[in-house]
Amino acid sequence: MTATEERPTPMGYGPMNRKEDARFVRGHGTYVDDIVLPGMLHGAVLRSPYAHARILSVDTSAAQAHPKVRAVITGETLAGLNLAWMPTLSHDVQAVLATDKVRFQGQEVAFVIADDRYSARDALELIDVDYEPLPPVVDARKALDADAPVIRDDLEGRTDNHIFDWETGDKTATDDVFGRAEVVAAQDMLYPRVHPAPMETCGAVADLDKITGKLTMYTTTQAPHAHRTVYAMVAGLPEHKIRIISPDIGGGFGNKVGIYPGYVCAIVGSIVTGKPVKWMEDRSENLMSTSFARDYHMRGEIAATREGKILGLRVKVIADHGAFNGTAQPTKFPAGFFGVFTGSYDLEAAHCEVTGVYTNKAPGGVAYACSFRITEAVYLVERLVDVLAYDLGVDPAELRMRNLLRPEQFPYESKTGWEYDSGDYPKALRLALEQVGYEELRAEQAAKRERGELMGIGVSFFTEAVGAGPRKHMDILGLGMADGAELRVHPTGKAVLRLSCQTQGQGHETTFAQIVAEELGISPDDIDVVHGDTDQTPFGLGTYGSRSTPVSGAATAVAARRVRERAKIVASAMLEVSPDDLEWEKGRWFVKGDPSASKTISEIALAAHADLELPEGVEGHLDAACVYNPPNLTYPFGAYVCVVDVDAETGQVKVRKFVAVDDCGVRINPIIVEGQVHGGLADGVGMALMQVMAFDEDGNHLGGSFMDYLLPTSMECPSWELGETVTPSPHHPIGAKGIGESATVGSPAAVVNAVVDALRPHGVRHADMPLTPAAVWRATQGDPIRTDLAIT
Amino acid sequence: MTATEERPTPMGYGPMNRKEDARFVRGHGTYVDDIVLPGMLHGAVLRSPYAHARILSVDTSAAQAHPKVRAVITGETLAGLNLAWMPTLSHDVQAVLATDKVRFQGQEVAFVIADDRYSARDALELIDVDYEPLPPVVDARKALDADAPVIRDDLEGRTDNHIFDWETGDKTATDDVFGRAEVVAAQDMLYPRVHPAPMETCGAVADLDKITGKLTMYTTTQAPHAHRTVYAMVAGLPEHKIRIISPDIGGGFGNKVGIYPGYVCAIVGSIVTGKPVKWMEDRSENLMSTSFARDYHMRGEIAATREGKILGLRVKVIADHGAFNGTAQPTKFPAGFFGVFTGSYDLEAAHCEVTGVYTNKAPGGVAYACSFRITEAVYLVERLVDVLAYDLGVDPAELRMRNLLRPEQFPYESKTGWEYDSGDYPKALRLALEQVGYEELRAEQAAKRERGELMGIGVSFFTEAVGAGPRKHMDILGLGMADGAELRVHPTGKAVLRLSCQTQGQGHETTFAQIVAEELGISPDDIDVVHGDTDQTPFGLGTYGSRSTPVSGAATAVAARRVRERAKIVASAMLEVSPDDLEWEKGRWFVKGDPSASKTISEIALAAHADLELPEGVEGHLDAACVYNPPNLTYPFGAYVCVVDVDAETGQVKVRKFVAVDDCGVRINPIIVEGQVHGGLADGVGMALMQVMAFDEDGNHLGGSFMDYLLPTSMECPSWELGETVTPSPHHPIGAKGIGESATVGSPAAVVNAVVDALRPHGVRHADMPLTPAAVWRATQGDPIRTDLAIT
Repeated sequence: MTATEERPTPMGYGPMNRKEDARFVRGHGTYVDDIVLPGMLHGAVLRSPYAHARILSVDTSAAQAHPKVRAVITGETLAGLNLAWMPTLSHDVQAVLATDKVRFQGQEVAFVIADDRYSARDALELIDVDYEPLPPVVDARKALDADAPVIRDDLEGRTDNHIFDWETGDKTATDDVFGRAEVVAAQDMLYPRVHPAPMETCGAVADLDKITGKLTMYTTTQAPHAHRTVYAMVAGLPEHKIRIISPDIGGGFGNKVGIYPGYVCAIVGSIVTGKPVKWMEDRSENLMSTSFARDYHMRGEIAATREGKILGLRVKVIADHGAFNGTAQPTKFPAGFFGVFTGSYDLEAAHCEVTGVYTNKAPGGVAYACSFRITEAVYLVERLVDVLAYDLGVDPAELRMRNLLRPEQFPYESKTGWEYDSGDYPKALRLALEQVGYEELRAEQAAKRERGELMGIGVSFFTEAVGAGPRKHMDILGLGMADGAELRVHPTGKAVLRLSCQTQGQGHETTFAQIVAEELGISPDDIDVVHGDTDQTPFGLGTYGSRSTPVSGAATAVAARRVRERAKIVASAMLEVSPDDLEWEKGRWFVKGDPSASKTISEIALAAHADLELPEGVEGHLDAACVYNPPNLTYPFGAYVCVVDVDAETGQVKVRKFVAVDDCGVRINPIIVEGQVHGGLADGVGMALMQVMAFDEDGNHLGGSFMDYLLPTSMECPSWELGETVTPSPHHPIGAKGIGESATVGSPAAVVNAVVDALRPHGVRHADMPLTPAAVWRATQGDPIRTDLAIT
Repeated sequence: MTATEERPTPMGYGPMNRKEDARFVRGHGTYVDDIVLPGMLHGAVLRSPYAHARILSVDTSAAQAHPKVRAVITGETLAGLNLAWMPTLSHDVQAVLATDKVRFQGQEVAFVIADDRYSARDALELIDVDYEPLPPVVDARKALDADAPVIRDDLEGRTDNHIFDWETGDKTATDDVFGRAEVVAAQDMLYPRVHPAPMETCGAVADLDKITGKLTMYTTTQAPHAHRTVYAMVAGLPEHKIRIISPDIGGGFGNKVGIYPGYVCAIVGSIVTGKPVKWMEDRSENLMSTSFARDYHMRGEIAATREGKILGLRVKVIADHGAFNGTAQPTKFPAGFFGVFTGSYDLEAAHCEVTGVYTNKAPGGVAYACSFRITEAVYLVERLVDVLAYDLGVDPAELRMRNLLRPEQFPYESKTGWEYDSGDYPKALRLALEQVGYEELRAEQAAKRERGELMGIGVSFFTEAVGAGPRKHMDILGLGMADGAELRVHPTGKAVLRLSCQTQGQGHETTFAQIVAEELGISPDDIDVVHGDTDQTPFGLGTYGSRSTPVSGAATAVAARRVRERAKIVASAMLEVSPDDLEWEKGRWFVKGDPSASKTISEIALAAHADLELPEGVEGHLDAACVYNPPNLTYPFGAYVCVVDVDAETGQVKVRKFVAVDDCGVRINPIIVEGQVHGGLADGVGMALMQVMAFDEDGNHLGGSFMDYLLPTSMECPSWELGETVTPSPHHPIGAKGIGESATVGSPAAVVNAVVDALRPHGVRHADMPLTPAAVWRATQGDPIRTDLAIT
């Protein structure tokens, strides 16, 4: 299936070309940097060259004397407005512009506003900051050492860099299982710090109308309503006087959930100058200072019988949260969905401890299409299973098949208290193995090993928990996890759907129109989807954690069904029969037993806008809304198989083949689902083989450009081979589970498992990501742990 | 009470400064002509110099060769798009650009689009139209003559200029009453053609995005949603792909209800050029070609006993509808609310016939703050009562007092079948007479007459029927008369209200915020009112016929009450009591018997957005909507007394004093109510004394500028003295009746009655408007009927 085929528009679910692509492929998308307002000024951020330093003075006089500079804002300016510090979304505060100290390289120190962006940049050079360098904490594992410098001395009574301890599971039961296990396999591993590097960097245009007091903020956020509420709570701006507009967004992946200092500076800049102010990161700023992902030092142990029955898991994690505790870090459960670290297996017990620490690195952050830490958890457990297979000498696919949860176990309550909704895991794995030709590949591998050629086959299986909330699992700012959908059918039968979630390129304009189409029989072409504008849409928590379809999709379906029921009553008045005598067929209500007596949705829409005599209590028009509060998460899953060829001499890895069998429940638009999977698989190849945010021992950022921070291209990716199973979520109105993050979550382990499998002739049992040629070569030399990245 | 006083914001109804004035008085309103889009082009309309002529040819080649001209659109261009004719809102069609004939002076013939508006205007001169002049029909009374030229030969089978005959009341009963009446007073009178002349003329910016197919139309309409539906139905544009934005509007008065050819030309211009196209009338174009008002030739008869008990009314009207049948003419009842022509009196029978005819004048049109023809009806009956008083030799105030409906008669079904909702008419008249000092004035008048000085006292009483629908009384395009309101309370307790009605300066942003404030106890300062944007508001028929408060105000109050009920359930969960144990006090729900246990709306709002455990079926957030379908009209009324001094030698009239006692039911903001009354009274003085759209016998328009079409200024107006009674409408959620048109409806008769009263020593029994110095002088010479305006 390709997106370029000509194909008819389905009246509901099915493959259809993306409606939004008409404008995207013709270059007519409108991104924040495309916004030009009359009189608009431009801001630029001065950033710290040090990872840790005391600020002795900031002299802005020369910058202010620049003929094109309109204003220079420092931490001191903001302190006067009580805005020098802002709360993060994770029970912490973050400096908007540093006043006392800088705590990571790239931290925001001053904001220059000038007539054009070149002058603003130039004037940054004219600001004289006197720093007193301090020793930095770079390695999270040393952050709690007694002699480690205290990074967050701004916090009352702080004497160390500890943020939180969090645990899940039953420690006693787990220790007991490990005590009686026949086999225990342990492995230290690192999930390095990476960055989603969306195509579009972050930015904003803030425009405060002094007359009306209204702030209009065009910004690259995935969560416009949450941002509005935060600005209202934090800056004291009245919430009804804030309009957040997220126009087209060039990729998010979690990077665009948080509130960054630049946003606040743009707002203050507009207040100070009385003009609209644009602030737009360059690539280096985005890579250096916005939400990173991962950075987990993990020690995992897996307990099993000699026959390969997995009994338990024991995990310890040191989580590096950077200098401030995360803009997208769930507050109630500090480690978030790492709670489902037990993966897809039938265990007796499991226990996990996570310790979060501050370091002198950019604040995090869990972001990167990760289901809030499930990526790390899946990687950990899928690597451990392979390590166990290595130790036991059994086939890793076979070992998984023995231990996967069985269909009859669903709904399944995990050992950490999460209720998996539905699935047939063995079927998905079987399908993947068949599709890839597993037996033949193993035969080919054996033959190649005879010839000294390195070929590897990696298997991974993942379960995600997506569609956040309900609030028992997540809590941002004390707000709930409900999202709204409002559906309005116009007099002529065309419709508009307003959503609280926001798209960053995932195809919402198509998918959500198809949901309405499926429920009402209005063509998706006749349904506009509106999002990304708080003035035009209902409240909701936005798009992250694959929650658009699970939450907003449910709200949409329910709203459409309410319209359908309302239409039924109007139709009954039009046809002069009781509503009970009507039957629904997609697009029309007809009289039972007399299908020719019917009214289409568009006829009903016109009548509903006319002053038809409606039964008592039924109002006119044909609108309905729903606020959907998910009763549970949804649990997509999948089985991936990766085949690699490795050049032993150069360490070069070639991904030859990749089969991904995903189950995201009901598929609304297979083309979009497959596109999401393609993107996530590329992410997985990138993380496994090349992506890493590295720092030197002074805390200098080593990945500030795409020359240093490598992303996969089509050259590094095979032609993806996709398969599917469909297990609808039983608690979801349309049985959809979400697909946005599945492949990113599931694929890194498959690639790493394949490479390690390839290196088996060299005795390699584990090797840390990213498996660059150098790392692969080193692993063949018995050096699998990335000591070179120990300081990431 | 003045609007400039500093005063606290009331938490509900009461005087408060208008929220919108902060931007208006500082020059920050945004009107259509303030809209500037990138690459925007400018259109200009070529208009017919003839009232009636055949078009032989239109040569646009020279105009198209103009270096700054982008396109020239003619009727032929439009015919190719099937758009040369458009339906009016009154079962008729109107030429967008003339193809066969021109039918009034100023009719649209071609549309030039150029880089700037000066070039567009210049290029109009380059278009060569070959006309064959035809004899015009200018006097409506001659339109049905056998030799009258047929204006609408475009209509199949048309052989005359007749549009409709319409009657109301019981002819037999009325003839019977007249047969046995002791006194019958008859009078011919003219309500001349006038024009509301809003400060802002009509215009639009049309912007069709070829990529998305979306038409964004900034336009000066009072009814954005109805316009959208019409464009969808007529031009075949998909309704969800049309966004109508009415930004700030500089006055409407009905003039901005209709769809004018210029709007359609701007749309076609944007389609043709691929650029945004602005079209903005100049003053002369607005006066010549947009919806006029009145133009009724009326013969009224009033039957009474010798003691002055009024028994019946008999009316014949010739209604001049111009060349096309009205853009704002109700279709179901061609003469609309002229149905309430029986006024405020207790009659035995009444009958009225209206004949509508085509003439070679601009199309109408009932517009001008007239409650759809009630202005003419009130003028007619109030003049007839004075004529009867003249004939009987009784005081006109006394005669009214004897015949007004009595409070115990309400709800009162009129002899033409309209159900008046509530009122105490004698009380209002008594109040007005007391306030003006009626007895003392009569004494003064008597003394002055002794001295040969002309002083007059005029009384009028009016009843309006406003708040259209329900549909049994009105029907536009088969659409109902329901309007929607959507209220959203944000997490921090600030609110936004979205309305289908649209303001033209009446203060909706304040009034509607106060309605919500009254119901919820949120400060009006914390409530934003959104209107005038079909993408942001629910469907509705818009603002006309004083229906904003009666219809949208009711929708708002009901929506707010729904929010209150939803808040009650959330509060009950928060306070852990049953909803039945809660009591409401403005702004909070508290536990009965324990007022300290309470939750404010803002606390409840935050909780409703959190994932609070709500009872089954109660969704999160704190939003509600209402589509209000009025069960009846509301019936504002009032008693007016005008005092004039007349200079017998020059004919100059000076309005010395004017007392207006209005009853519009519950008053939400007295300042705004009084402002509306002030404006309407000035309108009344203008119509009575100076305003007239005159034509010469060739159909040439004689009022194309404010040098010829005179409007009253503060110099012609006295300091208005207002009074009030408050009789809530029993069927309305908040008892409000509407005030927008009352003074325009009620005041012309008071002024004319005063002038005629002043001229009594000269034996004047009636004189037609406008009572210019010349007309007054002529009336003193025994020439009261405006034969000079016979051809209007």
